[in-house]
Amino acid sequence: MTLLADLLSTVFERRYRPFALRRRGTRPLPDLADELVGAAGETSGVSLATEILSGFGEMDDDEKRAFFSHLATEMNIDPEAVRTALDAYEQAPSKATYRAYMAAAEPRRQELIRRLNSLPGATRALVEMRADLLRLGRGTPELEALDLDFRHLFASWFNRGFLVLRPINWESPAHILEKITQYEAVHAIHSWDDLRRRLEPQDRRCFAFFHPAMPDEPLIFVEVALTRGTPGSVQALLTSERETLREDEADTAVFYSISNCQAGLASISFGNSLIKQVAADLSAGLPGLKTFVTLSPIPGLTRWLDSEGYEWQGASSEQMRALAAHYLLNAKLDNGDPVDPVARFHLGNGAIVHAVHGEADTSENGRKQSGGTMVNYLYDLAKVAQNHEQFATTRQMVATSEVRSLANSATLVKAEDS
Amino acid sequence: MTLLADLLSTVFERRYRPFALRRRGTRPLPDLADELVGAAGETSGVSLATEILSGFGEMDDDEKRAFFSHLATEMNIDPEAVRTALDAYEQAPSKATYRAYMAAAEPRRQELIRRLNSLPGATRALVEMRADLLRLGRGTPELEALDLDFRHLFASWFNRGFLVLRPINWESPAHILEKITQYEAVHAIHSWDDLRRRLEPQDRRCFAFFHPAMPDEPLIFVEVALTRGTPGSVQALLTSERETLREDEADTAVFYSISNCQAGLASISFGNSLIKQVAADLSAGLPGLKTFVTLSPIPGLTRWLDSEGYEWQGASSEQMRALAAHYLLNAKLDNGDPVDPVARFHLGNGAIVHAVHGEADTSENGRKQSGGTMVNYLYDLAKVAQNHEQFATTRQMVATSEVRSLANSATLVKAEDS
Amino acid sequence: MTLLADLLSTVFERRYRPFALRRRGTRPLPDLADELVGAAGETSGVSLATEILSGFGEMDDDEKRAFFSHLATEMNIDPEAVRTALDAYEQAPSKATYRAYMAAAEPRRQELIRRLNSLPGATRALVEMRADLLRLGRGTPELEALDLDFRHLFASWFNRGFLVLRPINWESPAHILEKITQYEAVHAIHSWDDLRRRLEPQDRRCFAFFHPAMPDEPLIFVEVALTRGTPGSVQALLTSERETLREDEADTAVFYSISNCQAGLASISFGNSLIKQVAADLSAGLPGLKTFVTLSPIPGLTRWLDSEGYEWQGASSEQMRALAAHYLLNAKLDNGDPVDPVARFHLGNGAIVHAVHGEADTSENGRKQSGGTMVNYLYDLAKVAQNHEQFATTRQMVATSEVRSLANSATLVKAEDS
Amino acid sequence: MTLLADLLSTVFERRYRPFALRRRGTRPLPDLADELVGAAGETSGVSLATEILSGFGEMDDDEKRAFFSHLATEMNIDPEAVRTALDAYEQAPSKATYRAYMAAAEPRRQELIRRLNSLPGATRALVEMRADLLRLGRGTPELEALDLDFRHLFASWFNRGFLVLRPINWESPAHILEKITQYEAVHAIHSWDDLRRRLEPQDRRCFAFFHPAMPDEPLIFVEVALTRGTPGSVQALLTSERETLREDEADTAVFYSISNCQAGLASISFGNSLIKQVAADLSAGLPGLKTFVTLSPIPGLTRWLDSEGYEWQGASSEQMRALAAHYLLNAKLDNGDPVDPVARFHLGNGAIVHAVHGEADTSENGRKQSGGTMVNYLYDLAKVAQNHEQFATTRQMVATSEVRSLANSATLVKAEDS
Repeated sequence: MTLLADLLSTVFERRYRPFALRRRGTRPLPDLADELVGAAGETSGVSLATEILSGFGEMDDDEKRAFFSHLATEMNIDPEAVRTALDAYEQAPSKATYRAYMAAAEPRRQELIRRLNSLPGATRALVEMRADLLRLGRGTPELEALDLDFRHLFASWFNRGFLVLRPINWESPAHILEKITQYEAVHAIHSWDDLRRRLEPQDRRCFAFFHPAMPDEPLIFVEVALTRGTPGSVQALLTSERETLREDEADTAVFYSISNCQAGLASISFGNSLIKQVAADLSAGLPGLKTFVTLSPIPGLTRWLDSEGYEWQGASSEQMRALAAHYLLNAKLDNGDPVDPVARFHLGNGAIVHAVHGEADTSENGRKQSGGTMVNYLYDLAKVAQNHEQFATTRQMVATSEVRSLANSATLVKAEDS
Repeated sequence: MTLLADLLSTVFERRYRPFALRRRGTRPLPDLADELVGAAGETSGVSLATEILSGFGEMDDDEKRAFFSHLATEMNIDPEAVRTALDAYEQAPSKATYRAYMAAAEPRRQELIRRLNSLPGATRALVEMRADLLRLGRGTPELEALDLDFRHLFASWFNRGFLVLRPINWESPAHILEKITQYEAVHAIHSWDDLRRRLEPQDRRCFAFFHPAMPDEPLIFVEVALTRGTPGSVQALLTSERETLREDEADTAVFYSISNCQAGLASISFGNSLIKQVAADLSAGLPGLKTFVTLSPIPGLTRWLDSEGYEWQGASSEQMRALAAHYLLNAKLDNGDPVDPVARFHLGNGAIVHAVHGEADTSENGRKQSGGTMVNYLYDLAKVAQNHEQFATTRQMVATSEVRSLANSATLVKAEDS
Repeated sequence: MTLLADLLSTVFERRYRPFALRRRGTRPLPDLADELVGAAGETSGVSLATEILSGFGEMDDDEKRAFFSHLATEMNIDPEAVRTALDAYEQAPSKATYRAYMAAAEPRRQELIRRLNSLPGATRALVEMRADLLRLGRGTPELEALDLDFRHLFASWFNRGFLVLRPINWESPAHILEKITQYEAVHAIHSWDDLRRRLEPQDRRCFAFFHPAMPDEPLIFVEVALTRGTPGSVQALLTSERETLREDEADTAVFYSISNCQAGLASISFGNSLIKQVAADLSAGLPGLKTFVTLSPIPGLTRWLDSEGYEWQGASSEQMRALAAHYLLNAKLDNGDPVDPVARFHLGNGAIVHAVHGEADTSENGRKQSGGTMVNYLYDLAKVAQNHEQFATTRQMVATSEVRSLANSATLVKAEDS
Repeated sequence: MTLLADLLSTVFERRYRPFALRRRGTRPLPDLADELVGAAGETSGVSLATEILSGFGEMDDDEKRAFFSHLATEMNIDPEAVRTALDAYEQAPSKATYRAYMAAAEPRRQELIRRLNSLPGATRALVEMRADLLRLGRGTPELEALDLDFRHLFASWFNRGFLVLRPINWESPAHILEKITQYEAVHAIHSWDDLRRRLEPQDRRCFAFFHPAMPDEPLIFVEVALTRGTPGSVQALLTSERETLREDEADTAVFYSISNCQAGLASISFGNSLIKQVAADLSAGLPGLKTFVTLSPIPGLTRWLDSEGYEWQGASSEQMRALAAHYLLNAKLDNGDPVDPVARFHLGNGAIVHAVHGEADTSENGRKQSGGTMVNYLYDLAKVAQNHEQFATTRQMVATSEVRSLANSATLVKAEDS
């Protein structure tokens, strides 16, 4: 009882964001920030942190930019101090000299962020603060550098070991479902009926990662369809007219949508862990599942075809498939990575290109970005580590022979030739 | 439902420590550690981390020492690389040069510890690993320096904002109560009846901090007695013959025992937050509470008297009180801090010396360490910040005039004079 | 942990209705029913009960009617046996003769219903069975008599002491909210946005009674608005354009909608307890609340005016109010009860008629049933018992002097006179 | 969240027994009881019930006996009224005449008990009230008859469908474990270490039934050992020196102790359901389990041998086994049931006599009641219904051929012959 009662009370405590209710004081936030990282911060830290987070929440963009600039310049490392401490440590390595080096080598703003986080509700406020920083700092080198400090700390705090995987279903709290609806980035949820069709039937699943300090905020979620065989059309998956499959009759789990929820957690990678964890959990509960695939968009296809000057607008479904296969396997960035961001993500996770489908996403957006094509990436849990290794080393796209043949069959016609 | 069902399942998942079941592989742990921080670590991190934590758990002390030495020397910073990256950043500050500096300035072992932590159950294993390090590394400078990296990360992970305060009572799970019994460091719990007397009556409370990644392990706990007036004897508090006070009749909350539970979290300070949070929570629930004091031991008293050559063995209770008051206010370390560690802790938190009692701890240990004296430190929530400030600046002991008079009345007689 | 883990697992166990999956056997249900109340029922009860409930679920209405007839006639009391047992008991009162009397005096169908209920999920199935009985048995005396046995047992099982009061809010599970939407009987919920406006703001509350054996099914719920002053229009309460009041600024709690959810629990009264419990709970949490009123429809007003031959269609808002007041205070059934069913309910609970409003429900239904008028019934917790007593004894309508004056001012014009 | 938050709050609400805090009023309890079943009881029921339960709790035994007598005599059925209502119903069966019959046929005290139960915490108070009644009413016919009314209602309220099966383990709340220790009736728990040995190892289990209205009170619990093979000694099961078996290596579940916890629920049978439910749950979670047996005492053995005049005190272990087998199979009551109460219980549940062991319970009590013998009753889930049927019809003891041979080998020597 006690454990849960407390976790419950904690949830409520965190939800009640005291700093949001505080009047903004008269002292400038940069001064408060300097004080918080100083000696006084140890004891009066809570009230200072409250005042800073409360104050930040009421700022306009110019004020926020100024606050970030203060962190970026005044709370940066002092190169001379780093050198001095480093020399002292090198000459006489000891606990004391190493401690002095650590203090000098890390910018004070990292300690500031940690001390701000000592408050219930602060983690969420800091994630929102970073979202502001990403938005306002783009193109400003010192703010982009400042972001690396946020990212460094967030990567540590949002470590997989601290995350909780939760199923999202028709018994989940409405306010969580509302966020799922709002954050779905791949195949928009049009209504509560649409949402219910993705959550309630026994052949539909959804899972999200949460952090205990932000229990009301999903971090990332994946939608899964349990099917017989690998599906080649997302509209067929989502139609309101399909029949529900009994879960124990499914042989395939299809990850048909993965969405990040928090702009302030950009570049903190969860997707890799999420897919593998969900695949492992589903596998344990439903031994009939043999195949784990995605049904993924190919967001960069037509843009790339256009940029390369290839014709495609009148292509048949079969021709479009071939073009998509060619693009996935051969369109590369300078560093050897695939051009397609989704391919990059799944191949980097150790998946392979399993099959390419035409007329698979007939929505307006699907037609526009990929001529209606979609792709299955296959997660073979026994081989993902080896696939990842091979991809990381060689940047070679692993694909089934069928997809390779398809790619070879593509007819690439320069647009001006036509 | 979903939230709690998942938190529950997470608890079980974390309890089941998969790496503890793994056979130890044949590759040396240092090699695995190097691999884990490399590129492959991103995808095959879980199996590598499992193998390392599992292997470490089976090592003997010599092997552990060798593993720590590898971290301390081979995964340390490279001063030349730090300098180069620092120069590059200083000459052309940018996101790229700052990122390179960050990578160089932090020893790779920090990234190792973070990646080890990506596993369910790993946080607890890492806390135990640090307990080993503290035990084995004492006196070895590079291992003491290595500990600073553990401590740096733990301070970030065990930030107050991530901790959960839970009441511990007679409805708490038995395995948690067992740990409370085992970790109680101030006034030993002799039996389940003794434990029950501290938890069940409405005028007794206990609170602990927990971390969501280690839900079975209290980090620190405090035992509280609700009383009328400030008590001057711990035996009177703990006797089995006292009458229970109705909670709404209490005017005073007495913190009579604070115990840290995790050797591996040494120097990560929770006590300050714990006392203030508990005082605030009690105050909100029981508006009749006006006074928050400790009833604390004076562990260094007789040792100090002996080391200074003062006589004390035949002193009366009143004389002993005066000696204790003198010791608390006047016995200082070279840096100006009080000699007494408990005084150092509470004064550092912003408490003041409120009253000194004779015949207050008549246990064998109480007689031996402090001639039976104890002290109340007073937490006046409205003044702790100001008191802390004053103490931090001046190292002056804040005490009531009564305690100051008592200290002045002490008769200090050199032992050889007698 | 254990308690909640188990309650959770119980919920899932109950949700999974094993009897729904059973194929219907070949033996007639009446035979199975006879067997279940016999000796064999003690041990093979679970499988018999499963077969009966499963079989009943697949029956059409004619088969159900036949099954009910079997219970009504074949499992009824045997008057001769009752007389014999009664005589024996009267002549020699003892444990044995009383036991024999009890067995004879109660129809065997009551034991049947109890034994059917020994199965997880059975309570809900039995509630649904009674809904069928009420629907199919109307006008058939022996089936109406049979219903009294269901009702007798349900009144015992759904005793207030077994019910759980839960807040319903925006964090409640979606499947519960869906049921709230579906069961709202007074002011229809038009969309999820409409639902959210009734649940999410801090000045809106909703509470429902649940039974532990049917945790997914609300039994009855009440919607509450926290306001300053007593509102006189339900559209003003429900508009999407109003401003939210801070909960601690409210002085009045308005019960503006009460809905029963289970047809199979008709005549099992929960509303009385619900209102008083919610008023007490709100009062404890929000000491600023001084007034507890309903904002209630007057469903029988225009029907009564028409049946009495009074003209009302062109009445002004003020005239309509007077007619409504007159109707509430003076229109009586033969037994002295008020004609209006909502008035009957609230007066019977000890509330009084507090105020009558015109243009208070301008919906089509509101205009039609009551010419737009509504009424506040006041629950003065200190006086409800006394009010109830007075009403129960005298059938006199307790109303404020203002309402009484209003009633006296009504101009009653026979329609044919105009 | 909401569901659990509420169930939690309900638990606390129920724990806080408001009627226990009420001063006893001046009106006699019988008067209050009469009022509660009257018309006023519907609305002022809560305060009346509070006063009655509170008052009863403060009564001494004489007052309680007087209160029970009032219920037994003044709130009994009125035979003349029953006859009149029965005649009316027989002549004109209708809803109205049946309702009148029901009202007359049931003593008003049943309605009283139901109305007392409308209060949080009341269920537990009523269970305690019945414990008083059983204690005080023994031998008084009208109080024994009154008990049948309590029993009738409790059988309905504590129906299997309302009970929750919970595992009890080392993570269970201490106050529940304390009750387990206190209620263990078969093999006393000597210390917390002893308790832990029965709960913590993976080859030990414990399960209890709870009722949602009394969440702090186990109703009945069973202790289970997972073993390889059927054990023949309870001391071997309970020794502190045994090695723990891995749960997945067990092939047998041994029910070695079943204890009822509530004197006030005597004759409300839970044991049958408990064993079958636990066997089914264990079976589902541990497919390796093939055999479900008890290791049961033979409490009536030596008493019966003595009463029959048979010698046994110098018997060898093997002779003792034979005597025990004979006793179990052949010692019968007049109605054909076995003399041994434990045998009666398990055979009645459909178990069979599987094996008899000598030197199986070497405790003082074990020697005294059964010369150290114990017996395994086997629950073959596929056959329990059929076994029960056979036993219920023929009263024939089902036993293995080995046990039958053993019984035949018994040497019965009249004590006076020796």
